[in-house]
Amino acid sequence: MFHVGSRSTVDLEEEITPEEVKSILLRFVFQSLDYDNSENQLFLEEERRMSHMGFRCLEIRRWVICGLIGFLTGLIACLIDIAVEELAGYKYSAVKQNIEKFTEFGGLSISLILWAALNSAFVMVGAIAVAFFEPIAAGSGIPQIKCYLNGVKIPCVVRLKTLAIKVFGVICSVAGGLAVGKEGPMIHSGAVVAAGVSQGRSTSLKKDFKIFEYFRRDTEKRDFVSAGAAAGVSAAFGAPVGGVLFSLEEGASFWNQMLTWRIFFASMISTFTLNFFLSIYHGKPGELSSPGLINFGRFDSDKEKNFDYIPFESFLFFPYYFPGGMLGALFNVINYWLTIFRIRYIHRPCLQVMEAMLVAAVTATVAFAMIYFSNDCQPLGQDSTEEYPLQVFIYLLGSMPNRNVICYIAHLQLFCADGEYNSMATAFFNTPERSVRSLFHNPPGSYNPLTLGVFTLVYFVLAVWTYGLTVSAGVFIPSLLIGAAWGRLFGILLSTITSSQSIWADPGKYALIGAAAQLGGIVRMTLSLTVIMVEATGNVTYGFPIMLVLMTAKIVGDYFIEGLYDIHIKLQSVPFLHWDAPPTSHWLTAREVMSSPVTCFNRVERVGRIVDVLSNTSTNHNGFPVVPGKICGLILRSQLIVLLKHKVFVERASSRLSQRRLQLKDFRDAYPRFPPIQSIHVSQDERECMMDLNEFMNPTPYTVPQETSLPRVFKLFRALGLRHLVVVDDENRVVGLVTRKDLARYHLGKDGLEELQLAQT
Amino acid sequence: MFHVGSRSTVDLEEEITPEEVKSILLRFVFQSLDYDNSENQLFLEEERRMSHMGFRCLEIRRWVICGLIGFLTGLIACLIDIAVEELAGYKYSAVKQNIEKFTEFGGLSISLILWAALNSAFVMVGAIAVAFFEPIAAGSGIPQIKCYLNGVKIPCVVRLKTLAIKVFGVICSVAGGLAVGKEGPMIHSGAVVAAGVSQGRSTSLKKDFKIFEYFRRDTEKRDFVSAGAAAGVSAAFGAPVGGVLFSLEEGASFWNQMLTWRIFFASMISTFTLNFFLSIYHGKPGELSSPGLINFGRFDSDKEKNFDYIPFESFLFFPYYFPGGMLGALFNVINYWLTIFRIRYIHRPCLQVMEAMLVAAVTATVAFAMIYFSNDCQPLGQDSTEEYPLQVFIYLLGSMPNRNVICYIAHLQLFCADGEYNSMATAFFNTPERSVRSLFHNPPGSYNPLTLGVFTLVYFVLAVWTYGLTVSAGVFIPSLLIGAAWGRLFGILLSTITSSQSIWADPGKYALIGAAAQLGGIVRMTLSLTVIMVEATGNVTYGFPIMLVLMTAKIVGDYFIEGLYDIHIKLQSVPFLHWDAPPTSHWLTAREVMSSPVTCFNRVERVGRIVDVLSNTSTNHNGFPVVPGKICGLILRSQLIVLLKHKVFVERASSRLSQRRLQLKDFRDAYPRFPPIQSIHVSQDERECMMDLNEFMNPTPYTVPQETSLPRVFKLFRALGLRHLVVVDDENRVVGLVTRKDLARYHLGKDGLEELQLAQT
Repeated sequence: MFHVGSRSTVDLEEEITPEEVKSILLRFVFQSLDYDNSENQLFLEEERRMSHMGFRCLEIRRWVICGLIGFLTGLIACLIDIAVEELAGYKYSAVKQNIEKFTEFGGLSISLILWAALNSAFVMVGAIAVAFFEPIAAGSGIPQIKCYLNGVKIPCVVRLKTLAIKVFGVICSVAGGLAVGKEGPMIHSGAVVAAGVSQGRSTSLKKDFKIFEYFRRDTEKRDFVSAGAAAGVSAAFGAPVGGVLFSLEEGASFWNQMLTWRIFFASMISTFTLNFFLSIYHGKPGELSSPGLINFGRFDSDKEKNFDYIPFESFLFFPYYFPGGMLGALFNVINYWLTIFRIRYIHRPCLQVMEAMLVAAVTATVAFAMIYFSNDCQPLGQDSTEEYPLQVFIYLLGSMPNRNVICYIAHLQLFCADGEYNSMATAFFNTPERSVRSLFHNPPGSYNPLTLGVFTLVYFVLAVWTYGLTVSAGVFIPSLLIGAAWGRLFGILLSTITSSQSIWADPGKYALIGAAAQLGGIVRMTLSLTVIMVEATGNVTYGFPIMLVLMTAKIVGDYFIEGLYDIHIKLQSVPFLHWDAPPTSHWLTAREVMSSPVTCFNRVERVGRIVDVLSNTSTNHNGFPVVPGKICGLILRSQLIVLLKHKVFVERASSRLSQRRLQLKDFRDAYPRFPPIQSIHVSQDERECMMDLNEFMNPTPYTVPQETSLPRVFKLFRALGLRHLVVVDDENRVVGLVTRKDLARYHLGKDGLEELQLAQT
Repeated sequence: MFHVGSRSTVDLEEEITPEEVKSILLRFVFQSLDYDNSENQLFLEEERRMSHMGFRCLEIRRWVICGLIGFLTGLIACLIDIAVEELAGYKYSAVKQNIEKFTEFGGLSISLILWAALNSAFVMVGAIAVAFFEPIAAGSGIPQIKCYLNGVKIPCVVRLKTLAIKVFGVICSVAGGLAVGKEGPMIHSGAVVAAGVSQGRSTSLKKDFKIFEYFRRDTEKRDFVSAGAAAGVSAAFGAPVGGVLFSLEEGASFWNQMLTWRIFFASMISTFTLNFFLSIYHGKPGELSSPGLINFGRFDSDKEKNFDYIPFESFLFFPYYFPGGMLGALFNVINYWLTIFRIRYIHRPCLQVMEAMLVAAVTATVAFAMIYFSNDCQPLGQDSTEEYPLQVFIYLLGSMPNRNVICYIAHLQLFCADGEYNSMATAFFNTPERSVRSLFHNPPGSYNPLTLGVFTLVYFVLAVWTYGLTVSAGVFIPSLLIGAAWGRLFGILLSTITSSQSIWADPGKYALIGAAAQLGGIVRMTLSLTVIMVEATGNVTYGFPIMLVLMTAKIVGDYFIEGLYDIHIKLQSVPFLHWDAPPTSHWLTAREVMSSPVTCFNRVERVGRIVDVLSNTSTNHNGFPVVPGKICGLILRSQLIVLLKHKVFVERASSRLSQRRLQLKDFRDAYPRFPPIQSIHVSQDERECMMDLNEFMNPTPYTVPQETSLPRVFKLFRALGLRHLVVVDDENRVVGLVTRKDLARYHLGKDGLEELQLAQT
């Protein structure tokens, strides 16, 4: 009836054997989130009891929580920033002392070794924390948060422990000099903060503050996690609107106006908090000059005072928009192969730690070698306004004649003559954030083309190798840096060719465009990334060229391979639902898509059967239609487990008069870590008891007829954030159940519709 | 079971008698839009025939259309701007000549009369066009577009004729000196452009270009209209991101990532087009300095070079945030009463034209009197960099001694001494856009407090009287102007009290905050307005105080009365669906909400019965479940009418072999103006024929059981953009039908849940 291809865009199945897929699947057992409220009797009673005033109080509490999320996320960003600054400062001063000590022996190689060792040590500590204590904290965390907002719960992803490891790990990897950024992990951190604060308790700490109990369900929690992710973006880039748009792009089908407004509030508070505390740290309280962990510096339309100058010439760059997509795709393809290699051969934690250390050492060595062999000495202008507070004191001595040993702080002199500086060192011996700013703003002529070309190549290789290591780290900044380097290179070449005197002869503008192109080519975000870039630039007039470049990068890149985050989501076989069903899927109907037969329960069911069904690990269903013939409700595994735990049996109804009646609170207390069925003891007598599900099941689950087309089922499922959709026949009898996995496996490949292998949901 | 109040927040029912409501309802018969595709056999066949490549071509066509929408919207904005400039220039030069002529006679009163007459003439022409030819073109059009995006089709709202009248009308009203802006109508204009371009034809012009036929259905059209509205916002304020957010806020439940991206593209093209053509008009092609019809001028953080300076002091303004909400609410209350008065007494077109002329004359007279009695002469500084190209040559002579007659172009001297200018005149004798910019940017001391106070009061009264006149005009600019005036007043008072030397001692900053507060208090938009204001300001750092002020304005304002647009939507009894069902509506179930009994058809139905049902004006249903007992489909009135028109009867099936089979194209050709049933002739013989609906009905309509709670029904309805939701019993038999009207009538008032009277859907 339709073509089920075995070939994905990049031949996923050929690369990973079924056994390997199984081994991945065993590591990650994904749960779906329940965004659809179970409107059972208990819930309706509670809602009906609540007054208008009660709802208003809830609303106020939501605002308070969003404010707290923003505040704490900002604090965490601040902590990371300060810790990185301090640690890196300590590292460089240690290297300096060492070099001074070894000066007599011509200690270039020794100082290289020390530097590499220090970097490896930092990275080792971070990698050990991640690999042994919380593997989910590896990487940027953005794929995981995308999945969460999409409705897939990856185990442990929003736990306090994950947050702690993440923050610690990112400090170590950035201080360790890897080609990584500290921005991506902020999004994950914000999400964890939100999940914690909104629930008013921490299961990691076993502490329940007994507040915000109303919000202990997936629907509410997800809204707050959106706010947290937005606050994270906002703190990372100083981009509150971009943060809101990021959350909307990733989890938009459920939003509404007030929610968006709250998310925006959290974002604003977050950037403000970061800004405020950093201003205190920098000793200028109140001078709020750092809205994000990175900002791109001031781009003036320096041609004239006219501030609304949208560069008309932006159209002329059209040919330059393509490399972004292609280089981004290349990055993704190489990283994809590397990730498969890692899945296959580097799955033991100690191997992972060793690889991370190796990368750290290689990064240091390569940088050292690059600077050593570079002859790109640029004269030091009077207009070098960039500050370099991380004073890189690299003294290189004796063995090299013609080379000066005087430390130069503002620009790195290194092997250059007096009054000159080494432009390769400017790009390498710096935090990546500062390198990006230098590429954007240093005056024309600060870099020679060869330096930029070599730097692009080397940093590209390092960055692609680094992403996917078992360390906490983001890919935004390395991408920006690569793009800024080749963008600036293009700018220089173009101005050489055309001898143009236009405003765009400034290579810094090309660097910005290149950075946007490269980042867009790798992550393939659209509107949100445009706004993030514009907010980080601080100048609205760059919106148009940035939009064009991101659009082209996405179109070109998508032709070759998916975005980096999507690749990693796919490699973990997450049942991720995209925006729409594949356009050519009208062939399929609910009948072909659904899982059947379905395990159903009766309204009043024997306890023994319930226990048996729940204990059956081979099926592991999470939702069960309730039927005496026709569908009359849907009950969830989590609900049944709470019922079993409290032994709500019909036979005990008489004694239940003395006992208190089960309330929604009991379900909330068990949320979100419902105990496994194995932990609940049911005696042989109790197995013969009956359980009345009427009060607890959702009496009005969404249903569709069997003939419904896949796109229609998909739309209903996605728009309402369902977990289970019951398929019924004409007589309203249950014939099947559609879950996320049933929908996510259809995928549009090059040869038409394809089925993917997915992890257990 | 629940309280059905008869009191709305502002006692709507007490003010308008039932007869009056009926007379409004007769004027506006609203249709709902079908955002839910009717997935009948024809549709499925077409989709299944289409290849992957076919879908890609459709996608490209969508992009082309969005580009066209942006381009044309930008052109229209450009046309309006140039026409207003030229007309106003002509008007002022005519007044000048007249005054010169009458100089000897002490012709102050004569020149006043001439001025008032000229204004009235302009307004009369505009009002006649609107009142007699297209009443829907009155006002800003934003409420109508909100309704359209919400799913309610107001007749004629997206026709070419409406666009022509709208553009002509707005030029007349702005040139006529009314207290109005030309920004609001741009949103409506953009929407009309989008509806026209995307359909590839104009029913007004009876011209079908035979392109874009695939997009001839509500689902697709609505997406393009979102893009058009966004392009309009973008052209009006130079705010492409704000435009996208506006569209999302108003019609967001249906969006997806690619759609958002296309909307953004249209917005960007729109602002770029406007900018480009205005630069040619201004004689500086390529210098793109006018991204929108209004921009707020450059707000520098002039204290230091540091561009990311978020004003910490913004918190200190907290007490100043309240007046925005309160003054906004006052504006809305007065305008509400006025609108009711107009509905009751001024419903004949000629009366409407006369009222508009009266307002124009009064506006001119009041402005004249204000300037005459004003003694606020300010010394002319050296730093008056604002240009006033509308050279207002008002010579006032002889009768007043001490007063000078020399025309001063840069600032209006009027009755002031040499080297001084009249600050009241700066505020009044100017296009409102320029007045706003003056209030934002003129140096401290340019206005004295009394002038500002009186100006605020007078302009408030004029603006509130003007909105709702039968002219095309927006309320954004007057709101900004009022707010800027009292904001600046507050700023002056505060700096007098505190003698503060902080950056915020600049009253221009207070003017900006005041403008935001006033506008927010009136229209109550949230995120989109924040972004629009930030983009118009061109400075990201003002985001935080603007957000705070808009948030406060909304909270304070909502306490008193709804937003201006919502009031007008409510007064027209539009069945507008808000984001969620009222929180206290869990009491209600589908059974209580639905309309019943429902008119159903059989799978094969007699033509006579269909004609009779469709002709029954008292029910006027639009969707009919198809049932032999159980629900097996849903067919729409529009589909039935096409079937009747083509006489698709079972008895003609044999002859249909020669005849061609009915295709989706036939339905698309009839879209959107399906002929009324009365125009279709069905003979007595034909009445006895049978019609087979199987092929044309939607076989899988969404259904809910009777016990479903109202919030759950609401969520399904809103998330999927439904028009009809079938309510079924346990046996899948139809028991009722929920339409938009059934849901929209529940409203949360002060005393709990209320039912509203709504227009026919």
